[in-house]
Amino acid sequence: MKTRAAIAWEPNMPLEIDLVDLEGPREGEVLVRIVTTSLCHTDMFTLSGRDPEGRFPAILGHEGVGVVEDIGTGVTSVRPGDHVIPLYIPEDPNCPMIRSGKTNLCSTIRETQAQGLMPDGTSRFSYKGRQILHYMGTSTFSEYTVLPEIAVARISRDAPLAKASVMGCAVPTGMGAVRNAAKVEAGATVSVFGLGAIGMAVIQGAVMAGAARIIGIDTNPAKFLLAKRLGATDLVDPGDHAGPIQDVIIGMTGGGVDYAFEAIGRVDMMRAALECCHKGWGECTVIGVAGAGEEIATRPFQLVTGRVWRGTAFGGVKGRSELPGMVDEWLSGKFSVDPYITHNMTHGQINRAFDLLRRGEAIRSVMHYRPGETMTNDLPGEILMEA
Amino acid sequence: MKTRAAIAWEPNMPLEIDLVDLEGPREGEVLVRIVTTSLCHTDMFTLSGRDPEGRFPAILGHEGVGVVEDIGTGVTSVRPGDHVIPLYIPEDPNCPMIRSGKTNLCSTIRETQAQGLMPDGTSRFSYKGRQILHYMGTSTFSEYTVLPEIAVARISRDAPLAKASVMGCAVPTGMGAVRNAAKVEAGATVSVFGLGAIGMAVIQGAVMAGAARIIGIDTNPAKFLLAKRLGATDLVDPGDHAGPIQDVIIGMTGGGVDYAFEAIGRVDMMRAALECCHKGWGECTVIGVAGAGEEIATRPFQLVTGRVWRGTAFGGVKGRSELPGMVDEWLSGKFSVDPYITHNMTHGQINRAFDLLRRGEAIRSVMHYRPGETMTNDLPGEILMEA
Repeated sequence: MKTRAAIAWEPNMPLEIDLVDLEGPREGEVLVRIVTTSLCHTDMFTLSGRDPEGRFPAILGHEGVGVVEDIGTGVTSVRPGDHVIPLYIPEDPNCPMIRSGKTNLCSTIRETQAQGLMPDGTSRFSYKGRQILHYMGTSTFSEYTVLPEIAVARISRDAPLAKASVMGCAVPTGMGAVRNAAKVEAGATVSVFGLGAIGMAVIQGAVMAGAARIIGIDTNPAKFLLAKRLGATDLVDPGDHAGPIQDVIIGMTGGGVDYAFEAIGRVDMMRAALECCHKGWGECTVIGVAGAGEEIATRPFQLVTGRVWRGTAFGGVKGRSELPGMVDEWLSGKFSVDPYITHNMTHGQINRAFDLLRRGEAIRSVMHYRPGETMTNDLPGEILMEA
Repeated sequence: MKTRAAIAWEPNMPLEIDLVDLEGPREGEVLVRIVTTSLCHTDMFTLSGRDPEGRFPAILGHEGVGVVEDIGTGVTSVRPGDHVIPLYIPEDPNCPMIRSGKTNLCSTIRETQAQGLMPDGTSRFSYKGRQILHYMGTSTFSEYTVLPEIAVARISRDAPLAKASVMGCAVPTGMGAVRNAAKVEAGATVSVFGLGAIGMAVIQGAVMAGAARIIGIDTNPAKFLLAKRLGATDLVDPGDHAGPIQDVIIGMTGGGVDYAFEAIGRVDMMRAALECCHKGWGECTVIGVAGAGEEIATRPFQLVTGRVWRGTAFGGVKGRSELPGMVDEWLSGKFSVDPYITHNMTHGQINRAFDLLRRGEAIRSVMHYRPGETMTNDLPGEILMEA
């Protein structure tokens, strides 16, 4: 079949919207029609060429939501019509990592996924006979995409598809980092480096955990209003201070924070996040993804005096067994995803979404494949339509 | 009063044994007669000049055991005749760090202790009118030493003073790292970098925690026999392998260990210890103390994929409230300290103890101030006597 897709031919080039060929689902695979997809920094990072795992040509996109259209043989857990979120970290109950109960890092299809291929080692996408690679096992920048059964989470049909894409990465990643990795407790002091969507979700998660003080840090003060609205108690622009930002935070908190989160992908900020933690018990959780070959460093004294450096991917959330429950929390009003959605646009405007994110003007731009179906006037955020 | 002491006049010079002047205990202080003291790498590290906190001239020594001889005004928790272990990390119940319940890192006297001074900002030691500094708040290389009340742990009188010095640092540090920092559980796989006394105590602690596999790593195979006797299941000399040691351990364990410990103080081994941890849950605990200005580094990907980098000082043990219980465990036969004690000698032979440790020939040399009192024929280890 043919599907409309945004093709990343090579690093640092605008995506090209065109029809590509898509093979149907093979055994253990499902065909999903993506209804909305949103743009995350990781897509931009890969397009920049700095991602060590980035391969081209590929169809990017890993934050989306859609409807199952067809299933391959052997698929039993979803059927056509189910609403699903594609999972860039799948959950295979037979994977030893998952069976350990200690991690969400399913390794069943990790190798082929990193190569941009389906588990059988081939791609379902092609363009005039030339293979186009999958990306993060999801490729939500194509209206139709094929995923392994273990890489879709069936969610409530009550979840509005116009907004649910942000449940595919930003919200569970930030909120999960607070709950599953750091395990923030009531009364804690928290700092968040980077006020993109993930940082905002950290704030939201910290509020839900009962954190007493939440310090947001960003070089772009335009982010402060939303951060405050979500529950940040203090906002710091490192540019306003001469010294290292960790010293500023230590000074503000009388010794450092209980939990720090790095949601940028800058190794110097990963260090600052660790070093702004309180001696004796402060824990830093790294969420951001750094460039190829970059390293974090600190004096080991920071650890020996009781700080902990950890990290998390997808917030430690097990996609199939835990993400649907988080969607239910959203639907029951425990939190709102509206604040993340700053822009709504058509899929054809995807390069504009990249520009907005690059300039720090968007938290999340949601792209609608069929605007008539989902782009209503009551959507959160600015609604952009093609000229 | 006069006391026999080993004076470190400057880095990299043998200690000089001589009589020094010692003032009696002031308010809140106690005078302790050290009965035995043992030599730890940290003393050697400070004497090497690489310790950023090292100051001279000073009386080194932080692993010892003794008897309270006199108390200053206001001291209520110990009295003359009590058997005590000096604590280089004191435990002041009024310290906010201790009150937090989250750490053993009491900060009440940290500042003066780092300067080699008693809490009132002065030293009790002098030599011909010249001030000699304390070291780590303990200075157990002097037969008599003055300590703050919060820096002595009263232990059972049943503990043989000839052996109990190793309970002042090595044993609680290694065993505590296993219990309090890493919290190793039954069935776990453990690796230990560095088979000095701390590494041996990690092995002993891991055995007590029920670890299924314990991999000892050292460039000196002479340590392997004792490590095996204590419970190591595998022993690795990095010199026998061409590739990075972390890859060797990952290969041996089918993916990495659950818990790694660095007990050397080498930043490259701190990295190796982290990187040999299993993806998804492996935790590295740094125990060793690195040189001034040295930094640890790794790719943040190591953390984002679920590894944890932590550290510990004195094994997270709260000296006054928890160390006496560990001594009781030893006395009740839950573990033995005999394996640590490879040499017994007089205090006058202290420079020989440094040589033995430097050459990797000793685990612990115990120095006896009054050999006639404690140096019996049934002591563990080789008994050296002055020629």
